[in-house]
Amino acid sequence: MDAKGISRAVISRLPRYYRYLGELMEDGVERISSNELSEKMRVTASQIRQDLNNFGGFGQQGYGYNVQYLYTEIGKILGLDHVHHMIILGAGNLGQALANYVQFEKRGFKVVGLFDVNPVLAGVSVRGIEIKMISDLEEFLKNNSVQIAALTLPKNKAAEMADLLVANNIKAIWNFAHLDLTLPENVIVENVHLSESLMRLSYNLNRYVNEHQQ
Amino acid sequence: MDAKGISRAVISRLPRYYRYLGELMEDGVERISSNELSEKMRVTASQIRQDLNNFGGFGQQGYGYNVQYLYTEIGKILGLDHVHHMIILGAGNLGQALANYVQFEKRGFKVVGLFDVNPVLAGVSVRGIEIKMISDLEEFLKNNSVQIAALTLPKNKAAEMADLLVANNIKAIWNFAHLDLTLPENVIVENVHLSESLMRLSYNLNRYVNEHQQ
Repeated sequence: MDAKGISRAVISRLPRYYRYLGELMEDGVERISSNELSEKMRVTASQIRQDLNNFGGFGQQGYGYNVQYLYTEIGKILGLDHVHHMIILGAGNLGQALANYVQFEKRGFKVVGLFDVNPVLAGVSVRGIEIKMISDLEEFLKNNSVQIAALTLPKNKAAEMADLLVANNIKAIWNFAHLDLTLPENVIVENVHLSESLMRLSYNLNRYVNEHQQ
Repeated sequence: MDAKGISRAVISRLPRYYRYLGELMEDGVERISSNELSEKMRVTASQIRQDLNNFGGFGQQGYGYNVQYLYTEIGKILGLDHVHHMIILGAGNLGQALANYVQFEKRGFKVVGLFDVNPVLAGVSVRGIEIKMISDLEEFLKNNSVQIAALTLPKNKAAEMADLLVANNIKAIWNFAHLDLTLPENVIVENVHLSESLMRLSYNLNRYVNEHQQ
């Protein structure tokens, strides 16, 4: 639960609502009932109504949801109504993939810096952003407003870099390194552990195979 | 719940146990009590005992867990005791990042093919794997044993490719495209929606900022 009493489960579902509503807008849909949305998203209509009621409802009985309004409001809840400056530490394939991903910028996540330890990468540009050395990071953070840092460095560098980020007032870390960061409570961490995701896939695949061999 | 009555929550925690046990082994630790493991992983000792009891326990009262044994057994449960052949559809930065990630191969996920639609990439090698065109995919699947396909293609191509994979008997899809795939029930899908992860980070960051401004 957060301060408004909204559960983590609800919050983790909001981006999916946002994605579907965005698609509906692209398709020119102006209104949608919770039943129609339920069919599209394959969650129950009552779940949808419950989830959205956490934020004051948005719907009118027998009339459905105004797609654009709901999209905008969920966007505000998710903090997408203003621009976040993001830096990426680690300019390997994954860091470059994140830097190249134009959808992030459309959602207000603007990559303003890309850092690595490998001198071969110094000065290489990715989508107009010149890769800098991590030795320049502190200076950069002093002179630029940055809210989010993505960590795509190897595990053995990630903890030290996270501490440096926190010492320089970064409040949100998007962590792709395969470790759990130990940071002050007021620092937000969102982990993307790709290995663990792949293991879940493997578990489910093997379970399926085993069940059907029996 | 799956067929053995093991909840999704337990399963989703297993890879994390596996990661910590692997680190303990690297550090030369042979035995660990649930209390010590609890401190390291920051979950309660009773949670650990409960989780591991789902698979028959592994621990001995007053004696703790044998790290190597537990690591091996959880590995088996996760299906990491045998090799999975994986192909990657989409050889952009993200696809190449996955292909380059040596840890996957250490865990038994061997990348055997890398495909793209962009002719500029044809014949380019990533870690010894030559990028092929998607037009060669069906032929490749007929002649090679493949269990897992990672989808790092743009959204507008992903659904069609997933159907093609399923038609060619692929049973597990690791989906990085920003859509929910509609596939037969016997196909395992594990989604990695990076945009949604970033939005959760943004939500939590903004919530924190708002609470501390009030």
